[in-house]
Amino acid sequence: MVQPCSAVIIGVGPERGLGATLANHFAAEGLHVFIAGRSIEKLQRVADTIQHKGGLVTCMVADATIESEVKQLFEAIRCSNSVLQIAVYNVDSNTPAPFLKTGTEAFTQLWEQNCLGAFLFAKQAIVSMQPNRQGTLIFTGATASLRAKPPFTAFASAKAALRALAQGLAREYSPKGIHVVHTIIDGVINGDRAAQQFPEYYQAKGQDGLLKLEAIAETYWSIHCQHPSAWTHELDLRPYKEPF
Amino acid sequence: MVQPCSAVIIGVGPERGLGATLANHFAAEGLHVFIAGRSIEKLQRVADTIQHKGGLVTCMVADATIESEVKQLFEAIRCSNSVLQIAVYNVDSNTPAPFLKTGTEAFTQLWEQNCLGAFLFAKQAIVSMQPNRQGTLIFTGATASLRAKPPFTAFASAKAALRALAQGLAREYSPKGIHVVHTIIDGVINGDRAAQQFPEYYQAKGQDGLLKLEAIAETYWSIHCQHPSAWTHELDLRPYKEPF
Amino acid sequence: MVQPCSAVIIGVGPERGLGATLANHFAAEGLHVFIAGRSIEKLQRVADTIQHKGGLVTCMVADATIESEVKQLFEAIRCSNSVLQIAVYNVDSNTPAPFLKTGTEAFTQLWEQNCLGAFLFAKQAIVSMQPNRQGTLIFTGATASLRAKPPFTAFASAKAALRALAQGLAREYSPKGIHVVHTIIDGVINGDRAAQQFPEYYQAKGQDGLLKLEAIAETYWSIHCQHPSAWTHELDLRPYKEPF
Amino acid sequence: MVQPCSAVIIGVGPERGLGATLANHFAAEGLHVFIAGRSIEKLQRVADTIQHKGGLVTCMVADATIESEVKQLFEAIRCSNSVLQIAVYNVDSNTPAPFLKTGTEAFTQLWEQNCLGAFLFAKQAIVSMQPNRQGTLIFTGATASLRAKPPFTAFASAKAALRALAQGLAREYSPKGIHVVHTIIDGVINGDRAAQQFPEYYQAKGQDGLLKLEAIAETYWSIHCQHPSAWTHELDLRPYKEPF
Repeated sequence: MVQPCSAVIIGVGPERGLGATLANHFAAEGLHVFIAGRSIEKLQRVADTIQHKGGLVTCMVADATIESEVKQLFEAIRCSNSVLQIAVYNVDSNTPAPFLKTGTEAFTQLWEQNCLGAFLFAKQAIVSMQPNRQGTLIFTGATASLRAKPPFTAFASAKAALRALAQGLAREYSPKGIHVVHTIIDGVINGDRAAQQFPEYYQAKGQDGLLKLEAIAETYWSIHCQHPSAWTHELDLRPYKEPF
Repeated sequence: MVQPCSAVIIGVGPERGLGATLANHFAAEGLHVFIAGRSIEKLQRVADTIQHKGGLVTCMVADATIESEVKQLFEAIRCSNSVLQIAVYNVDSNTPAPFLKTGTEAFTQLWEQNCLGAFLFAKQAIVSMQPNRQGTLIFTGATASLRAKPPFTAFASAKAALRALAQGLAREYSPKGIHVVHTIIDGVINGDRAAQQFPEYYQAKGQDGLLKLEAIAETYWSIHCQHPSAWTHELDLRPYKEPF
Repeated sequence: MVQPCSAVIIGVGPERGLGATLANHFAAEGLHVFIAGRSIEKLQRVADTIQHKGGLVTCMVADATIESEVKQLFEAIRCSNSVLQIAVYNVDSNTPAPFLKTGTEAFTQLWEQNCLGAFLFAKQAIVSMQPNRQGTLIFTGATASLRAKPPFTAFASAKAALRALAQGLAREYSPKGIHVVHTIIDGVINGDRAAQQFPEYYQAKGQDGLLKLEAIAETYWSIHCQHPSAWTHELDLRPYKEPF
Repeated sequence: MVQPCSAVIIGVGPERGLGATLANHFAAEGLHVFIAGRSIEKLQRVADTIQHKGGLVTCMVADATIESEVKQLFEAIRCSNSVLQIAVYNVDSNTPAPFLKTGTEAFTQLWEQNCLGAFLFAKQAIVSMQPNRQGTLIFTGATASLRAKPPFTAFASAKAALRALAQGLAREYSPKGIHVVHTIIDGVINGDRAAQQFPEYYQAKGQDGLLKLEAIAETYWSIHCQHPSAWTHELDLRPYKEPF
């Protein structure tokens, strides 16, 4: 009997968000998709859509920064007896502020959500993937992963920490068959979050000025499909109009 | 009547080489492929294979560093009345040497082949693509594009010049609809060149220790297919075993 | 009456260590030096030497990762009624380990010591320096600030976070007159720590294969002395023999 | 009898320029200074000032891109029987233009002046310094060395080529005792060139918004004076007000 294949995405929120889009894409490719996030309502809505289209999906409420919850998520995957093919750390937390207005708690929380959670998630993903000597582990980065500019200093510090983590993991686990990827999303994603948080910016950017969700998902999938003799570790994704 | 689509690749040599593989791949996707290089014999052999498989191909002998020859190449494309979709600058010239053993001519030639030729090629490609506000322009880079190590200092200098050229072009032409890509091939390509030039290294690397030609071509194609709202400008490609 | 000038260094340990050497150098330049670290015995020994040479020094036991202790340190400086000229974050904590052997606590602690402490320290330093629109804030980085290699992934992640913090602060506070510097110490420092922790490596490197403490201190001082029209934000320091 | 020490700077033009300022600074430190450039009138004016202050200076008309002229320059130094301590490649040529308006000749010339000349100069400097296993070789870079932005694409390509050359040389010659340095001048220098070429910009930047010539020279000198156990290869220099 052929073992089913699975994917896991943590950081799944609104239906028009990157996590949900990746889940839909991977489910459409035939993977059993495990989706995790902090809101069961949001997860349920995403799951309903996937199931409606005939996909196989499991919801898990999990805070990426809490080790026991991340462990439970991966235990559920292991119990499903599937072969984990893709794991995406898609948590992205950003609170712009001038440096002196950035509290210790806020600074710590940004690091926990953007980097510590990735550490916890990567550990479980590697433990799951290692016996099969295969699997793709993707971390979603941002413009700030490469450059720290106020008022995004705290965010950039956390994203730079994530990037280095991804790079170290690639050096350690590529030779063991695990494809570690760091993406740099350089621009604003055309999803619910931007529409709600910065409606004017969202309007001003116009058609193709924001990253289309499905376009990002296609690149994630094609990077996952790369032959091990020619793996990409890092790539940027940017609307053609975006200055950089 | 629908206008046919075309691709152009300069730096096409041995059949088991990246240029030839890209040509085969693009022809199989239905593009009229223009291939250019310095040896008519090599070009003809590549063309025969493509035609044999039912592809449409045109050979042009051209030295990438000679402006008039590059112009002629693109005039042939314009005469074909096709829409140029992809242009790949695939010339790669490397002559390792200690610094004091690197002659002025050798230093200049590496720059001419890796960078000046790309400048000439890019100019013609942009002139062809600009009226349609579309097209993908890919430059093949190397490990040395990012780091200069002896005995590759002269090569690294030329490749760094190429990378900056590609980056400046991306900033200038992305907003005008032209997708400019720089790839970093970090490892040795599993082709005729390595097999002949470093047979022992070639043997030692073994299965998947060298970049498979077709694997690279697939990534080039998928980057070309990206939606303009989420374009990649730079990505690395590396065998999973390759230390970096 | 002229206000005295002061410097503060956190991360002062053994006498033959970078923190102690900077303290001696700054005291010799006539600054009142505040030195902080976790061991009163070590601080006292450093202070004795400085006082013996006629320098002015104040010891403060402080854990850089505890906000209240960092605050107390700067309150002591403010009470001294001196003008804070230089603040050096010199805490450097490194525990190499394969990724799966890196515990959550160890990962977190490396970040706290290399980055969170720098955040707390920078905040107080900026609050002290801002009214005068002058002062130099230096963060000591490492090879790993730029590249993450196992078994240093956790360390590299923390150091990359520190580097981004320093960069964001430079962009925010340079225009306000505060000189923010990030140094990349690329090699092993010729001090007590290396001598004790890796005695064989220490022996093998030989004369000038390790960074001389006083040589680093001289560069720190000359960077501090730069005219505001030509400030350095980042520089590397490396033994001439060190491969990179 | 003690052998005298010397310095050489190529790219010496107006009196209020970086080349001239370095020459004055090195002469004041007691070095016999060889200054080279294309205009004998300009060189003579710089030399007169140095001699007037009691310095030892030799003028040589030389085009940095012509190998024989660079050789003659260094033969003059060898004939002087001095020990060459510092060699600065200070040629900086920039002609902003949109890509399609950049001619092949202009593109080539920018590379020749910013990179090929540095190659020729470095070769002679290394040949002179190698027997003594000492000396400092400095290349003046720019913002564009790290980032290519239109209309500076051609300039950035040339400066990136120079940076890689400097990096390769550092890796090859540092272990042989030659200190190779690449500086990134990130801003406009407060000299005659800017005053004449962009008078409005020059006015607008105001006090300390432009890099002071003497401030740059001081950093060059202090980098030259570094102990070999703690050498800097690359550093940026930027007015405190300059956004980056």
